[in-house]
Amino acid sequence: MSRESFWTADPAELLRVGEGFELADVDPQSHPGFDGGKAEAKAALAEGADILAELQEQLFAGSRMGGHKRRILLVLQAMDTGGKGGIVKHVMGAVDPQGVQLAAFKKPTEEELDHDFLWRISKETPAPGMIGVFDRSHYEDVLIGRVRELAPPAEIERRYDAINEFERGQVANGTTVIKVMLHISADEQKRRLEERLERPDKHWKFNPGDIDERLLAPAYRDAFQLVFERTATADAPWFVVPADHKWYARLAVQHLLIDALEAMELSWPAADFDVAEQQARLAAS
Amino acid sequence: MSRESFWTADPAELLRVGEGFELADVDPQSHPGFDGGKAEAKAALAEGADILAELQEQLFAGSRMGGHKRRILLVLQAMDTGGKGGIVKHVMGAVDPQGVQLAAFKKPTEEELDHDFLWRISKETPAPGMIGVFDRSHYEDVLIGRVRELAPPAEIERRYDAINEFERGQVANGTTVIKVMLHISADEQKRRLEERLERPDKHWKFNPGDIDERLLAPAYRDAFQLVFERTATADAPWFVVPADHKWYARLAVQHLLIDALEAMELSWPAADFDVAEQQARLAAS
Repeated sequence: MSRESFWTADPAELLRVGEGFELADVDPQSHPGFDGGKAEAKAALAEGADILAELQEQLFAGSRMGGHKRRILLVLQAMDTGGKGGIVKHVMGAVDPQGVQLAAFKKPTEEELDHDFLWRISKETPAPGMIGVFDRSHYEDVLIGRVRELAPPAEIERRYDAINEFERGQVANGTTVIKVMLHISADEQKRRLEERLERPDKHWKFNPGDIDERLLAPAYRDAFQLVFERTATADAPWFVVPADHKWYARLAVQHLLIDALEAMELSWPAADFDVAEQQARLAAS
Repeated sequence: MSRESFWTADPAELLRVGEGFELADVDPQSHPGFDGGKAEAKAALAEGADILAELQEQLFAGSRMGGHKRRILLVLQAMDTGGKGGIVKHVMGAVDPQGVQLAAFKKPTEEELDHDFLWRISKETPAPGMIGVFDRSHYEDVLIGRVRELAPPAEIERRYDAINEFERGQVANGTTVIKVMLHISADEQKRRLEERLERPDKHWKFNPGDIDERLLAPAYRDAFQLVFERTATADAPWFVVPADHKWYARLAVQHLLIDALEAMELSWPAADFDVAEQQARLAAS
């Protein structure tokens, strides 16, 4: 059975945030479009890894020697334990590290706070030929920024438009922007936090502040809903990925990347030198 | 058979550049200390990947929450086609991308040339908990720098001491520095360049300048020999890895990394919070 045979529909279509989208309608336990379970997903992920790796190499190769300026920016957002790290490790980890530009955005430093919120973001946008991955992003500034009132309301409001403008600029410069929210249920989050507390080798991943954030989950869901309403554009779409099943979330994000790369219709770049001439030079060397 | 059973001696000992080392004495086709062939090496590499991945996670974990400042800097140098990219892809690719900080140094830009040669290097040194990988490095400034006379002789001379001082600073700040030269024969290089010219999907990796560099191989070998004499220090040792067999080179570098991490005697960091208290908070949430 090939990877495609388990997909009954294109997840990009099923998961894209469209008109009238309501986060509350998404079941975090569902696995839209994938007609299989954990074992099938594991096999499909391995198969997809090879496809993704070759497409990534073509993307990279085509950008060399003054080639195209295409690139991908994958934005990952989620509540704590949502599985961002697992996407980076298991989906991006299958790709040549030389083609991946990863940026993890933590609590802003004093220097970062002294600049516009997009200052630190702009610096990390991917170079041509790269797959950029944002583990958290400028969306924190309208998520935790809103929930915890880290900026005045007018400033928060301003940011949605600034984000759309910023992303439009990325797209205009050859970037395919893919924004993903990994959506987990309150119960699943509890289980994952419990595991971190039970296992000494996971303690370092736990922070008491995670529970403070968890108590604010309803406010975060409202803030996410607003993000979707204000920033889900045709150019830079949002995808809400049900993520209680890690195997589904990883497979779905991998599929989104493959889709985006296939849409570029990449091919190996032609030589910008005379092959026979170089073969003769090499033979004589 | 376990991974270790194929190693008859520690490659770190066999490959380290010591007193009286002569590059000319190293056989690029050899596989010191490894009593197996390609198939055994592939199995050993897969086994080593799991070990390396866990050690890397401990290194990373231990650096969080105001922990230790330890980190690794792996410097990779080689002639064209030497296999640096393969090390990054197949050795580092098995590690969580979140724990790897990769920097590829190309021909310096005008801005970089306007600064001391270590300016662009310093900026890319790894953060605590990370494995930093330099694909080419400050050594280019005493390799191509010397061979192509890109700087006055006195400036080239000055750089060896500057490099030693720079690396001493890294070590003093908790970095384990591992410097690797992948050593391939002229014949093997010819085969690899031929392959790049034969396969259209490899043309993008070929540059006519590669043949110009190839013609200068004797001068580069002299420049490498000088690098070893001037910068192989106890704190920041050089390892010359025979690399005609890609399987050996990858396995040897993986082993050097595992050795370095095991020498740190890492363990999972203790919680800096009261576990039972947090479990109670979580249960109530």
